[in-house]
Amino acid sequence: MALLQNAAVPFNRADSFISLEKHEGLDARARVGFGGGWKLRPRRRNLQLVLNSSTNANVETINGKKVNGVCVERDTNLMNHEFLLGRFAEERFVFRQAYVIRSYEIGPDQTATMETLMNLLQETALNHVAKSGVAGGGFGATREMSLRKLIWVVTRIHAQIDKYSSWGDVVEIDTWVDAAGKNGMRRDWIIRDYKSQKIITRATSTWAIMNRETRRLSKIPDEVRQELQPFYLDRAAIATENMDTQNIQKLSDQIANRIRTGLAPRWSDMDANQHVNNVKYIGWILESMPVNVLEDYKMKNITLEYRRECRQSNVLESLTSMKPITQQQQEEDAQHLECTSLLRMEGSHADIVRARSLWHSKKQISPSL
Amino acid sequence: MALLQNAAVPFNRADSFISLEKHEGLDARARVGFGGGWKLRPRRRNLQLVLNSSTNANVETINGKKVNGVCVERDTNLMNHEFLLGRFAEERFVFRQAYVIRSYEIGPDQTATMETLMNLLQETALNHVAKSGVAGGGFGATREMSLRKLIWVVTRIHAQIDKYSSWGDVVEIDTWVDAAGKNGMRRDWIIRDYKSQKIITRATSTWAIMNRETRRLSKIPDEVRQELQPFYLDRAAIATENMDTQNIQKLSDQIANRIRTGLAPRWSDMDANQHVNNVKYIGWILESMPVNVLEDYKMKNITLEYRRECRQSNVLESLTSMKPITQQQQEEDAQHLECTSLLRMEGSHADIVRARSLWHSKKQISPSL
Repeated sequence: MALLQNAAVPFNRADSFISLEKHEGLDARARVGFGGGWKLRPRRRNLQLVLNSSTNANVETINGKKVNGVCVERDTNLMNHEFLLGRFAEERFVFRQAYVIRSYEIGPDQTATMETLMNLLQETALNHVAKSGVAGGGFGATREMSLRKLIWVVTRIHAQIDKYSSWGDVVEIDTWVDAAGKNGMRRDWIIRDYKSQKIITRATSTWAIMNRETRRLSKIPDEVRQELQPFYLDRAAIATENMDTQNIQKLSDQIANRIRTGLAPRWSDMDANQHVNNVKYIGWILESMPVNVLEDYKMKNITLEYRRECRQSNVLESLTSMKPITQQQQEEDAQHLECTSLLRMEGSHADIVRARSLWHSKKQISPSL
Repeated sequence: MALLQNAAVPFNRADSFISLEKHEGLDARARVGFGGGWKLRPRRRNLQLVLNSSTNANVETINGKKVNGVCVERDTNLMNHEFLLGRFAEERFVFRQAYVIRSYEIGPDQTATMETLMNLLQETALNHVAKSGVAGGGFGATREMSLRKLIWVVTRIHAQIDKYSSWGDVVEIDTWVDAAGKNGMRRDWIIRDYKSQKIITRATSTWAIMNRETRRLSKIPDEVRQELQPFYLDRAAIATENMDTQNIQKLSDQIANRIRTGLAPRWSDMDANQHVNNVKYIGWILESMPVNVLEDYKMKNITLEYRRECRQSNVLESLTSMKPITQQQQEEDAQHLECTSLLRMEGSHADIVRARSLWHSKKQISPSL
């Protein structure tokens, strides 16, 4: 006991630290070596603290590294990469990952952009699949999908944003999947502010399976369904009564308030699948919004319907139509705007993405925004 | 002692963990409450483990949160945010931060893009200032600078990339500053692969001070110099003999191999300072590169000379001239390309950024790339 009371433990590296993390199904151990020698061993839902008084010799090296009183194994598993890289929670039905909002992820109004939020949702979804044990070769595809040259394509995303984070804020994202009809998958997310643990964003999406070569939609093969089913969780991020299930009107030149032409994907818009990343479309949709709306309003929710792929050689047009919303329960209608947007090919006018979004005046949202 | 040996400690939350981190100058404490009650208290360079046997009562709440045997304060300081948000090292001369490369930060060739690297360098620099205790109101400005409406502007960046990281890789970035002549500051960075601890990128930059309102360069006021000097570290990320110190030739229409016109900044290219972010220029420079070079070559190093600001209303042109390099010591010259680039205003042809970059064929670099 005296040993413990007076154990002043010098660190040998300025950046060393000790970390003990509890999570299920992953092998995480933290070992701290000093005079007495003790360690923490996680079991399923218990953490056992063991004081091992038999190892009284000073530990000089661990894993070939010289130590000075305390040695912390400089192992990626110990450096809280579970926290950084994400980990399963709730009996492996939920995948959870934390992110720090970076300086270049915030927009002119000092808060995270909609693209940033969508990027983080996508990253969490991809890490969920990557860590699930069923990942195939492609981004987000399962093994049985990869064998059949099948890929996921998103058909619809709906997000509701209560609060936009700022530079340095930490957000924690939960994601899970469920069946959507016979041949679809639903993926939901919630974003929590890490400090307050309040839910600040909710999102849901539906996905279909496509043949990578023919680019035609496919049924979900039984083998793929068997891979997915163990992860299905019957829980909705957005309650049915709050869902946006209506189809989005197709904008025409006559209806649109504003049209922005000549939008050419840049090389840097291409992702690892050599396609324009889904998230980039949001930037183009915003291109047809008036700057004063982007400056004075905050996107409160958005629904995106993805209708066609886009490659680097395509040139796009962005159309937007805006109207003040006139819900009776809303006292100050003029403060809100509903926008309908269309991203289409220049020339053929083929639909790529339709979107509907609700914008609140910044003065109406809480002062912290 | 018996207590400790058999203390099976159930966690009350699936995602709770205990974390004890050592760092200087920051108040970090981890407290774990259970039957016996003990805590770890860091001191300057020592970590003291104290077993407090007088507090035998079960701890029911800590910080107002109900606990169940073990309570872990769910405090951002404890959740290894020092690691995520960065921390000082080497007697506060070096600021160090780790990042996980995200799926949307890699390009079509599956590795981190040049923009991603530059974004992470910028983020580390801004966090360095933010944590230094001398930060003023603006991004990267010190208090004495903010009082005088002064901001930093980058005049030159030179980066040498040995290895590009992949999705999920962890990189650790060190940054520090030094004087550069009488009225400039130099900021250097090294990027290490976290796992191998090998240096994979080195970069250096020079900065001048500008009046935010007049947009004219200014001398460094004595009060600002006094804020900066305690951080100056006489260490170079890139050895003098490896530095690119030559001026960059100004490209003309006659010399350029390729010209890309009509580059209009998007709303999403604007940063929190309402200007086009420095990093975005790299995307536009790449716009005038042939796609086969972007596909088959890897940027080995780049020097950027920033000459003029750009706002959202500007329309730009990107020019590039390429030549195979003919260094005698190089056996396979045809594998390398030297590119000179210019980003200029459409119309006035005023210089915005000049760049020189060296590209190696991907077949020549190590297979892991």
